[in-house]
Amino acid sequence: MMHRYDELWAGLGLDLDAHDRLLKALPPTYYEVYLKQENRPRGMEYFDFVINEIHGLRIKELQEFRQAGGKVVGTFCLYVPEELILAAGGVFVGLCAGIEVGTARAETVLPRNICPLIKSFMGFKLSRICPYFESCDLLVGETTCDGKKKAFEVLADFAPVYVVEVPQKKGPRDRELWLGEIRALAARLEELTGKKITPETLRAAIVKVNAKRRALKRLAALRKADPPPISGRDALLIYQIAFYDDVDRFTAQVNALCDELEERVRRGEGVVPPGTPRLVITGTPMAIPNWKVPYIAETSGAVIVAEELCTGLRYYEELTDERGETTDELLASIAARHLEFDCACFTPNLKRIQKIGLLANEYRAKGVISYILSFCDPYAVEHYQVEKGLRDRNFPVLKVETDYSEHDAGQLRTRIEAFIEMLTGGANTRTE
Amino acid sequence: MMHRYDELWAGLGLDLDAHDRLLKALPPTYYEVYLKQENRPRGMEYFDFVINEIHGLRIKELQEFRQAGGKVVGTFCLYVPEELILAAGGVFVGLCAGIEVGTARAETVLPRNICPLIKSFMGFKLSRICPYFESCDLLVGETTCDGKKKAFEVLADFAPVYVVEVPQKKGPRDRELWLGEIRALAARLEELTGKKITPETLRAAIVKVNAKRRALKRLAALRKADPPPISGRDALLIYQIAFYDDVDRFTAQVNALCDELEERVRRGEGVVPPGTPRLVITGTPMAIPNWKVPYIAETSGAVIVAEELCTGLRYYEELTDERGETTDELLASIAARHLEFDCACFTPNLKRIQKIGLLANEYRAKGVISYILSFCDPYAVEHYQVEKGLRDRNFPVLKVETDYSEHDAGQLRTRIEAFIEMLTGGANTRTE
Repeated sequence: MMHRYDELWAGLGLDLDAHDRLLKALPPTYYEVYLKQENRPRGMEYFDFVINEIHGLRIKELQEFRQAGGKVVGTFCLYVPEELILAAGGVFVGLCAGIEVGTARAETVLPRNICPLIKSFMGFKLSRICPYFESCDLLVGETTCDGKKKAFEVLADFAPVYVVEVPQKKGPRDRELWLGEIRALAARLEELTGKKITPETLRAAIVKVNAKRRALKRLAALRKADPPPISGRDALLIYQIAFYDDVDRFTAQVNALCDELEERVRRGEGVVPPGTPRLVITGTPMAIPNWKVPYIAETSGAVIVAEELCTGLRYYEELTDERGETTDELLASIAARHLEFDCACFTPNLKRIQKIGLLANEYRAKGVISYILSFCDPYAVEHYQVEKGLRDRNFPVLKVETDYSEHDAGQLRTRIEAFIEMLTGGANTRTE
Repeated sequence: MMHRYDELWAGLGLDLDAHDRLLKALPPTYYEVYLKQENRPRGMEYFDFVINEIHGLRIKELQEFRQAGGKVVGTFCLYVPEELILAAGGVFVGLCAGIEVGTARAETVLPRNICPLIKSFMGFKLSRICPYFESCDLLVGETTCDGKKKAFEVLADFAPVYVVEVPQKKGPRDRELWLGEIRALAARLEELTGKKITPETLRAAIVKVNAKRRALKRLAALRKADPPPISGRDALLIYQIAFYDDVDRFTAQVNALCDELEERVRRGEGVVPPGTPRLVITGTPMAIPNWKVPYIAETSGAVIVAEELCTGLRYYEELTDERGETTDELLASIAARHLEFDCACFTPNLKRIQKIGLLANEYRAKGVISYILSFCDPYAVEHYQVEKGLRDRNFPVLKVETDYSEHDAGQLRTRIEAFIEMLTGGANTRTE
């Protein structure tokens, strides 16, 4: 049962009726996807609590922070460095959205056939039903895809927006441009918060965010065990929450969960029977509450053991160098770190393809799901390389192109079941 | 009646049967769209001839050039400077394609719901039915949209491809990156042709291409007359041919046509009755033979007087400074010129919106057609700004989103007729 925060929500200017309808939709899905799972780690209770309070306690914290003069910065992408926002004394919240909402409003300003993630965040903003959006003092967008790049121009009519340019290659010229963009963003954040970024605040922020990344890397490594001690769904949920939870609290909770999972691995205990077919999932990010494909896969006899996604490996794999002495050295480290991971917005992006192959090997996956959100051109076209690269390494790959609706759930289940059966030579049994 | 060049085509490795089917499809359309027009300028004969020989004489010229050691460079975008290719001793050909062709083949490597222009060039290449593609020693792509950027990676499996990075903003950092990209492209072209770009060859190439641009500006200015001395369709055809015809010959023919049009304007003679409602068209480029919307508009009682398109104003409006002494100075002028025009790939891109308003005023247009090729996110999302900007200036705007098929031709005609009637208060009569 979710608690109500009507005064808080009204104070943020939310459309309370529409917001109520949204809140009512979440619990049944969450029960089905998450709470029904058997043999979940106890440490997931914290994350269940966070979801239960998704529009409550965290929003209250943000409001208290703002009332004390703090600034909240909304982001849509890994390329906006969390440590920079923290170093300027701000708090970040990820605003990507994984649910069909406010579509009619969104389509008054956007084309109909655009990626559902973009339509979703625009729908949330225009319908005033996202308390995170309404808690932001600044939105920081980026140029990673045409749809977002141009949608931020529209969004700027409804909220303060600043856009960071992410380059499209990774050569020396691009690194130069990118470093300049990071410096300019730092200046903009200082202007917003009225606080100077110093080597001390910047280093402390890097250490803080790195600790979160290390905890998530620890979690990832535990999933190499057979059976894995945690489901792919639960891991995805944790990655999704990482984008907006308080950093230190979140890190502590992930580490506490990892302590428990280590015990499980020692005891050979898992969420699925040993030998359950293992999958890697790769492609377009899955924003909360977009759990459709992992849910279907994990209730069709497989377990997901790794995600080559922004809501996955790309988020936590690389650490920022903590060693710089000056602000500029540390900014350079942040810039370098944030060009390391392999978004399909880059050309070429073959390191991603190698990474998927390595990941599949390392996590002993039998197959790969190439997940593409409808109208997501970068990942949709790059799927050609994914398929070619995995075929060369003899990894079966299933392309799944879908949106946020439930219309294709039955068809997806049939295809994913058939894929898993193919992986196991027909011998697989359903785990749920 | 088109001449046949079977030996030439076979020598290029074309699929002759598929190519024959393509050649047969063009003349009836061309007759309907172009030759049936009344009161066309005599100077259009040259351009009709070029189209009639589209896969013949020009291809023969390119082959002769290659046999003499010359290199042909295929391009897909205005951001690849023609003068650079010429200065390196090469010849450029625009490869964007405006017809549904080889779709089944293209869809083996590309997603289905991608922009038809991209699907078209991929279809041409994979089906081996475009003699221009097969005449190219190098394809130079760019990063102006997600679809093309990623499709060039696929294309690189089938032909030699080099990709130029176009930045996404126009600040000092972007100009720096862009200048670097232009210098790198110059080096790549020198490597291809084995010829050094010198201040002399570069200046000569700039002067040559500027002369073409001046001729096209002259043509554009003549269309301010009421009645305009040439149809929008014919003007579009000329812009399309500009992308692959020999520069000096083309320039001479455009100037000869302008001499004739000046006479017409002096006599008050036009292709439509005086007072015919005038339209500006803006949006996604129209690659040859994509004439659908101009044809429908001009056979529904209106005349198109200006195009804020890559196949229009953006192509010829800006000249490159001819004054530099060194190669590097001239390259800097080329780089500067090629960030002037306003593609929707930039964020923000509000100069485009102002330009459309100015153009509509200057050409005494009654309304604007905002033309969007299906799945073209940059122009589709930027349409929001177009509509807002023109509404502020009281210009009616009609959004037309379509592809290369004829399925929606009837529906489009109904919508465009209604728009034109609205512009004229219902008093307009059809001109054809």
